[in-house]
Amino acid sequence: MPRKRTTAEEGDTGLQPLSKPDLERASKRSKSDLRASMQRQRWRRDGLDQFLPYPIHQVNRLLEPGPVVLVTTGSLANRTHNIMTMGFHMMIQHEEPTLIGACIGPWDKSYDTLKKTGECVLAIPAVEMLEKAVDIGNCSGEDVDKWETFGINPVPAPEYVSDSGSAEEEEGKGEEEERAQTRAPLVGGEDVVANIQCVVQDRALVAKYNLWVLRVVGAWVNRDMDLEYGQGSKNAGDEKNSVGGRELGVREMKMAHHRGDGRFVVDGKEVDLRARMVKWKEFQD
Amino acid sequence: MPRKRTTAEEGDTGLQPLSKPDLERASKRSKSDLRASMQRQRWRRDGLDQFLPYPIHQVNRLLEPGPVVLVTTGSLANRTHNIMTMGFHMMIQHEEPTLIGACIGPWDKSYDTLKKTGECVLAIPAVEMLEKAVDIGNCSGEDVDKWETFGINPVPAPEYVSDSGSAEEEEGKGEEEERAQTRAPLVGGEDVVANIQCVVQDRALVAKYNLWVLRVVGAWVNRDMDLEYGQGSKNAGDEKNSVGGRELGVREMKMAHHRGDGRFVVDGKEVDLRARMVKWKEFQD
Repeated sequence: MPRKRTTAEEGDTGLQPLSKPDLERASKRSKSDLRASMQRQRWRRDGLDQFLPYPIHQVNRLLEPGPVVLVTTGSLANRTHNIMTMGFHMMIQHEEPTLIGACIGPWDKSYDTLKKTGECVLAIPAVEMLEKAVDIGNCSGEDVDKWETFGINPVPAPEYVSDSGSAEEEEGKGEEEERAQTRAPLVGGEDVVANIQCVVQDRALVAKYNLWVLRVVGAWVNRDMDLEYGQGSKNAGDEKNSVGGRELGVREMKMAHHRGDGRFVVDGKEVDLRARMVKWKEFQD
Repeated sequence: MPRKRTTAEEGDTGLQPLSKPDLERASKRSKSDLRASMQRQRWRRDGLDQFLPYPIHQVNRLLEPGPVVLVTTGSLANRTHNIMTMGFHMMIQHEEPTLIGACIGPWDKSYDTLKKTGECVLAIPAVEMLEKAVDIGNCSGEDVDKWETFGINPVPAPEYVSDSGSAEEEEGKGEEEERAQTRAPLVGGEDVVANIQCVVQDRALVAKYNLWVLRVVGAWVNRDMDLEYGQGSKNAGDEKNSVGGRELGVREMKMAHHRGDGRFVVDGKEVDLRARMVKWKEFQD
């Protein structure tokens, strides 16, 4: 929506009047400032401010440990959003593009939706949310509104974040509205470790094995959780850690791993063997 | 190899001489007894006696938690056996048949071998073996004999164990020799949680994503480790647990999960939510 520019935005500095190119640049900057400010407001309202963008090429750090995950499909925009629990997933490729494998079968309501929209979000629940995650996996979206039943806040899907961490270019309004019909919501709440936005990359093995190849198009991590396992602090007394160049909080992060029959094992102690990874330095900071 | 039957085996009971069908049955039984005894001897010699057969349809209990695994390919019979480390794997299907997804790419020496033989073993190292597992993943079989360098004992692959736990029917000698050329060895040693014997089921996504669909044809678990996490004992003071109807030892079992950059998280506390798994009872005992 075009808006009236104020004098201040036009460069009311008491200096010489700006040239036309200067004016255009200033106007562009202020537009982008306003957009950023509106986005922050929207994110706060939606609950996205609990999360920070995370580098897509590092998503393996979230999924390779094998946590039980939540999967959302459908869209808030048309109230088709659903959520399920899943233990059958893997990393397929670190980057270019970042790929994930996931098994979602016709016994899941999410299967039909994923088939239609081609989009989903994988969210990693922290152990504090494990009971909810199990309950979500033990009923069907056909019968209950799982979001309401389990008090889970669906967060409207933000624009995808590219691997460099910047949001995608704004799309045309019509296109964006159309996109909102397919974009799966994030899982909100302070007990969610991360949200990983995916689009279907390959359906070749869906009919045979219900195996979806997903491409990661955005990733978000809980701003209050310590994804560096206490090792990110550079200085004693420094309460902030850094992940992917961004500040993160210090709340201990523990994932849960499904042992296949309803028993789970929770993250225990950390073993740092980075010094021994002589062959795979490119996957380290 | 035919062998001379002893009088005792022919039924030296002091009763009436046995009829011809009786004799045939007895001979059959004693042959099978002998075969079992020879097999036990061979297993002891090879180091397979560290393991017990495990039900294939429960392999998800070993892999769904997402442990880092070792992968063997090639064969001891022709000295092509190699071993690598892998974090990109998943369960695809519980049973009929039990399927696993695994990423092994042309950068791994094992890729060519797997392409040729179509067989591999996934072994789960316990945390006690984690440093070795990382070192195995940070050098190439092109340059070193990893088995010797890291003191890992390759166990000649036993006949596949079917889902019911019984060994496959004995094959013809020629066929068995040929099979021995492709069958990947198990990883021996008291710090190995489990060995999962696989054959390639589907190569459809190998060229595109290095993603192999593997079918499980045999599974073995460490006889001294507690796969029931202390919950298998029925009586106080009972030192044995039962997994898949078999007795298992009580040594604590801890897997390690790769956090993607050389850091690992080790199994911590256990959370038993089996009572909440109302929808998936078929995956419980």
